[in-house]
Amino acid sequence: MKKQIHGGDVYRNPDALDFSANMNPLGTPESVILAAQEGVRKICNYPDVRQTRLKEALAEYEQVPEESLVCGNGAAELIFMFAQALRPRRAVVLAPTFAEYELALKSVGCQVEHVRLLEEEEFELRSAASICALVSSGADLVCLCNPNNPTGKLIDREVILEILEHCRKHNARMLLDECFNDFIDEPEQYTLKGELNRYPNLFLLKAFTKRYSMAGIRLGYGISSDAELLDRMRSCVQPWNLSIPAQEAGVAALQEEEYVRKARHLIARERGWMKEEMEKLGLKVYDSKANYIFFQGPRDLVEHCLEQKVLIRDCSNYIGLEKGFYRVAVKLHEENEQLLKALRYELGGGIWQRL
Amino acid sequence: MKKQIHGGDVYRNPDALDFSANMNPLGTPESVILAAQEGVRKICNYPDVRQTRLKEALAEYEQVPEESLVCGNGAAELIFMFAQALRPRRAVVLAPTFAEYELALKSVGCQVEHVRLLEEEEFELRSAASICALVSSGADLVCLCNPNNPTGKLIDREVILEILEHCRKHNARMLLDECFNDFIDEPEQYTLKGELNRYPNLFLLKAFTKRYSMAGIRLGYGISSDAELLDRMRSCVQPWNLSIPAQEAGVAALQEEEYVRKARHLIARERGWMKEEMEKLGLKVYDSKANYIFFQGPRDLVEHCLEQKVLIRDCSNYIGLEKGFYRVAVKLHEENEQLLKALRYELGGGIWQRL
Repeated sequence: MKKQIHGGDVYRNPDALDFSANMNPLGTPESVILAAQEGVRKICNYPDVRQTRLKEALAEYEQVPEESLVCGNGAAELIFMFAQALRPRRAVVLAPTFAEYELALKSVGCQVEHVRLLEEEEFELRSAASICALVSSGADLVCLCNPNNPTGKLIDREVILEILEHCRKHNARMLLDECFNDFIDEPEQYTLKGELNRYPNLFLLKAFTKRYSMAGIRLGYGISSDAELLDRMRSCVQPWNLSIPAQEAGVAALQEEEYVRKARHLIARERGWMKEEMEKLGLKVYDSKANYIFFQGPRDLVEHCLEQKVLIRDCSNYIGLEKGFYRVAVKLHEENEQLLKALRYELGGGIWQRL
Repeated sequence: MKKQIHGGDVYRNPDALDFSANMNPLGTPESVILAAQEGVRKICNYPDVRQTRLKEALAEYEQVPEESLVCGNGAAELIFMFAQALRPRRAVVLAPTFAEYELALKSVGCQVEHVRLLEEEEFELRSAASICALVSSGADLVCLCNPNNPTGKLIDREVILEILEHCRKHNARMLLDECFNDFIDEPEQYTLKGELNRYPNLFLLKAFTKRYSMAGIRLGYGISSDAELLDRMRSCVQPWNLSIPAQEAGVAALQEEEYVRKARHLIARERGWMKEEMEKLGLKVYDSKANYIFFQGPRDLVEHCLEQKVLIRDCSNYIGLEKGFYRVAVKLHEENEQLLKALRYELGGGIWQRL
C-alpha cells in the first residue's frame, strides 16, 4: 500500500473542510465535469494513443509546437517518466520541496543532494551559488519548483536563469515545476517557457490539477525543446497512459481562461487578508505568492483543527522542516472564514508564542 | 508522439465497426458508467492513494489478501512497473505475443530472447523445453500470456507449471498475463492463482479492460505473494496512479458477475459459428479459446474490410508474424454478421487460396 505522505486525504477525514491540498478555489468548472462524464460514455474504446485533440488544444493554449509536449497521468507521472528516461546520477533538490522529485529519483538509484532553504532567510532561494557549486562538482540534474511547495516562495527569474545557464555549460538538466505558476500575480513574469528554445536542457512541468481543480482525473504535461528526451520519456510509459475522460476533460478545461483569471484575483485578495488574520493570532506566516500559505504554529495544530472539522497540511514530513510547520490552501472567502474560526478557537485565548 | 502499434484505433477510423480490440462484447455495464460519472463529480479531490474501497472489493472478488494486490492505470502500466522494479537482465518472450512486455523490458535495458511459436504447430506452446533451456542458461524472467494474444491459444497448465517450477529453481520470475482468462470456457481450470502462495516468483497480471469493456478508463491489477516485489513496484510509480473515476468504476464492475458469465457463453457460441463461416470462405482460422479469432487471409484484407466499414487487426507488426495474419474480436451476433458480410464481399467471389 502507498503511504499517505501528501495532503488531500479526504478519505480518512470525510467530514473535514480540506485545506491540505491546493486546488483552484472555484472548484472544477462544470464544462470539465460534463466533458469528462461524456468521455466516460466512450470507455469501451481504448484512449487515443496519439492524444490528438488534447495535444492540439494544448499546443494552441501554450503557443508551443505539439512535438514539444509530453502528457502524463498527472504531473506526478511525468516526474517518474523524466527520472526513468534520464536516469541521472546526482541531482540537486531543494529542502523543503514537493517530495515526489526525490522519490522518483531514488527509484532509479539517483543520489540526491539537498540545498537547504533557511528559516532565517524566510525559506527563500536568494542566490544561485550553492546549486551552481553542486553542478560544477558533477550534479547532472537540478529540480526546482516555482513557486515552491510548500513555502509559496518565488525564485527570481535571474537566479533561475543563472542556474540554467550554468547547467547548460556543465551538461546538466533542469526540471522546473511550474504547476503553481498560474496562481501567482504575474505568471508571465516568472514562467521560463520563453527560454525553452534557448535551453534544450530545460524541462518544464505543468498540470491541469491545480489550475482547474481536477486532481482526481489525473492530467499533467511537460514541455521541452529536446525531442530526443521526450521520445525517451514516451518509451518509459505505456501507450494508453491518459484515460478518455482525462483527455476530454483537458480539452474542455483549456477553454476556461476567464475562470483561471477570476481565481487568480480571488486568491490574491484572500491570501493577503488570511495572512493578516493569521498574524493577529501570533502565527509566523511566510509571505506566499501562491494559492497556499505556509506558516509556523503550535505543534498539535492539525489535531485541534480536525476537531473543528478543518484539515490542514502538517509539513513536518518535508525534508528540512520539523513539527510546527503547516500549509493551508487559499479557498473561497466563506471557507477561509471557517479555517480562521478554527484557528481562533484554538489560539484565540492566548496569542501563540514562537518557541 | 506514441505510434499506434496496437488495435483499437477508432480515432482514425471513426465510422468503422471495431473488431481490432477485444472487449467484452456486451459493452460497458451501465452500473460502471454511472459509478465513473459519479466519480467525475469528485475530481476536485486527489484520488485515494490507499485505494481502500477498490482493494477491499478486489481482495473479496479474487479471494486473496489485500497485501498481495497492486493496482495500475491499466494492466499496461503494471507491465512497466514490473520491469522497472525488477530490471531483469535477460527475459524470455513468446513470438508472437502482446508487444508491451518487450517494450517495457527494453525500456530498462533488458535483453529479450524470443521463443517462436510455429505455424506448423498452430502457434501453440506445446512443451516447456525451449523456455526451460533459456532459463537454465541465465534468463531471469519468463513472460507468458494465457490465452495468448493474438493467437487465442491456451498453454496447458502442466506446461506452465513445469516452466514455473524450473524458474523457481533458477531464481527466475514469471510474469503471467491472464487478462483474457475470463472469456475462456473454463477459467478456473487455467488460472494459476492457486499457485501464488507456492510460487512467490509468479506475478499474475489481470485487467478490468476486457472483462468489463472499460479500456478507456484504465484499470488493471497484479497479484503476487512476494510482498517485497510489490513494494518495489509501488516505489516506481506516483501515489495517485488510479483516477477517482477508475477506482469507483472498478468497485462497481466487480459486482457484475452475471454479466461476465453471460459474455462467456455468448463468446463460446459466436466464436464457433464465426470460425465455421470464415473457414467456408477458405480462410485459415486457428482454433481460439479466447474472445478473439486469429486467422490468415489475403494480404490486403484490412483495407478491403475498412471499405466495408469494418476495422480488423493487422497482425503483421507482431514479432514472428508477417503480412496476411489477422485478429478479430468476437462481438455481438449482429456485429459479427457485419464482419462476415465484409469478408464475404471481399472473398466470396472466389475462395481464398493460401499461398
